[in-house]
Parts: sequence; C-alpha cells; structure tokens
Amino acid sequence: MTEAIRIIGIDPGLRRTGWGVVESLGNSLRFIAAGTVRSDEKMSLATRLCQLHDGLSDVIHSLMPHEAAVEATFVNRDAAATLKLGQARGIAMLVPALAGLAVAEYAPNAVKKAVIGVGHGDKKQIVMMVKVLMPKASFDTEDAADALAIAICHTHHRQSPAYRLRAELAG
Amino acid sequence: MTEAIRIIGIDPGLRRTGWGVVESLGNSLRFIAAGTVRSDEKMSLATRLCQLHDGLSDVIHSLMPHEAAVEATFVNRDAAATLKLGQARGIAMLVPALAGLAVAEYAPNAVKKAVIGVGHGDKKQIVMMVKVLMPKASFDTEDAADALAIAICHTHHRQSPAYRLRAELAG
Repeated sequence: MTEAIRIIGIDPGLRRTGWGVVESLGNSLRFIAAGTVRSDEKMSLATRLCQLHDGLSDVIHSLMPHEAAVEATFVNRDAAATLKLGQARGIAMLVPALAGLAVAEYAPNAVKKAVIGVGHGDKKQIVMMVKVLMPKASFDTEDAADALAIAICHTHHRQSPAYRLRAELAG
Repeated sequence: MTEAIRIIGIDPGLRRTGWGVVESLGNSLRFIAAGTVRSDEKMSLATRLCQLHDGLSDVIHSLMPHEAAVEATFVNRDAAATLKLGQARGIAMLVPALAGLAVAEYAPNAVKKAVIGVGHGDKKQIVMMVKVLMPKASFDTEDAADALAIAICHTHHRQSPAYRLRAELAG
C-alpha cells in the first residue's frame, strides 16, 4: 500500500511566483490548492525577495508538501532579466529546501511534455491540459497553472527508475 | 556624538560568497572580520543555496551588523552563469533583509572608485587598497577582500545627502 505524496510545484518570477500543490496516489492525481505570491515593484529588491520568501514559507507551512519541483527556466533576453529571474529562483529553491523538502528541477520542455504530451506548446495549452488532468483545479494566474504543471511533471518523473536511483545516490 | 555603524559587505557567488564586516565612526574605519562561505559542488543546487543561507545567517547573527551592502555584479558570459550568480545573489540579499537590515547595492565600478579612486582596476589592486585602508584587515580569499571593499564603499555612500534622502523616502 503506497501513501499519497503531496507535491508543490513552483514557477519562479520576481514579480509573480506561481505555486501549485497536488497529491499523487498511484496513477491518480488530486488538486489541493494553487496561487500566486506577488512582490511589490515599488519596494527594494531585498524587500521583494523577503516577500517571496514569506509567501512561499506560509504556503509550505500550511499545506505541508513532501517534495518540491521548480522550473529551470532560461530567459534568453538580456543579462539583467536573467539575473532578476535567478534571484527569484534562488528563493524558490531555498524555501522548500530550508523546510527539509527535496527539490527537483525540470526544464520547460519536460514540463510541457508531461502535461501536453509534446515538448512544445504555449501557456494557453498548459492551462487547458491542467484543467483536463485535474477538472477541479482552480488558479488565479497562468503562473499558478504553470506551477501545477510542474508538480504534475514531478509526479511522473519521481516514479521513474532513473529518478529513484538518482535520489538514492543523492540522499 | 555619532555612534559607530557596523556594516557587512557581501560578494555573492554560488561556489564562494565573500563577506566582510567593518565599523565606521566619522571618517575612521575599523576592520572587524572577513571570511568566505562555500557551497559543496557535489550537492544539489537547493542544498548549496541552503549552505550559503546558513553560513551568512551565522555571520550576521554572531557579528550583528546594522546595514548590508551587496555587489550588483553582471556576468557577461552565458545565461547559465548569470542565472547561477542570480540565485546566489538572491540568497545574499535575502539573508540580511530577513534579519531586518537595510540592503544597499553597488555596481563594481562604484566599489572600485571607493577603494582605488578610479572606476576600473583588477582584483589585486582592490586587495592592496583594502590593506592600505585597513592595515589590520585579514581575509582568506579575494572574495572576502572584495566584500570588505563593498562595505567600505557603503560607508562612503551612506553619508551622502542623496543616499540619505533616498533612504528616508524608502524607509
């Protein structure tokens, strides 16, 4: 008898960080909650990073997921945008790790492959497929829907023999 | 009668994050401590960010600085390196902010101007000038010397009328 595993997916961004929590038991998938942590653009960078930290900490401490998955996004715009995303992503990985959760990383095409079936597609397709896979899912932003897709992606990969081997070697 | 202000400078990096603490009273400058927080390259990214978090938290809680200054570095190599630096930098800004410190940011040329006198120069010149400005300074790496230079830079700028006005508007 396996137990349900609760997973938090996180789509990091300095302005908006989406999060989504799902529960996986065998092949079944259950929506728990999703939302968006925002930082105030009028505040200093350090304060904004605190806002992301505090928002994600609240979610993790109230919903108690067992594992976390974060999108490994690459921005191909400018160095300043990439640095900004990196800073938000640092917080998105730190907060679950500080809470003792293992943190997996997935490239955007792996996330798309898990929910759409192919490694490409736009945000609208992800939103639609998240609704197909979990009809009860509700989310306030596309970032929250993306975070649910990241969590779903992790439910697929964590059961693969390769992932388990890696986790055992690391842990 | 003004009181001594204790400042922590931080030079962020995923592998090595340098830190340096100085005390400033009027025009005098006193070396307190400097060092380097390292993360283990063999561990996962999330674990490495935790190591940076824990190391910087320990320094701040034992040396109790009043203000923090972090270098606003731009890496012009590839997006992957910039993202990595951004993640470390997110932690370097978050930790003092969570401890209630105001966090200032300085571009590398502002730091060089503060310690060398001009906006360009190499790491060796920074190391040399930190030793000239604070003969008792000791540091284990160039990153720690750089962090001391960032702290020195902040002692100059925090007294400028423009900085004070900005701080009053923000605070």
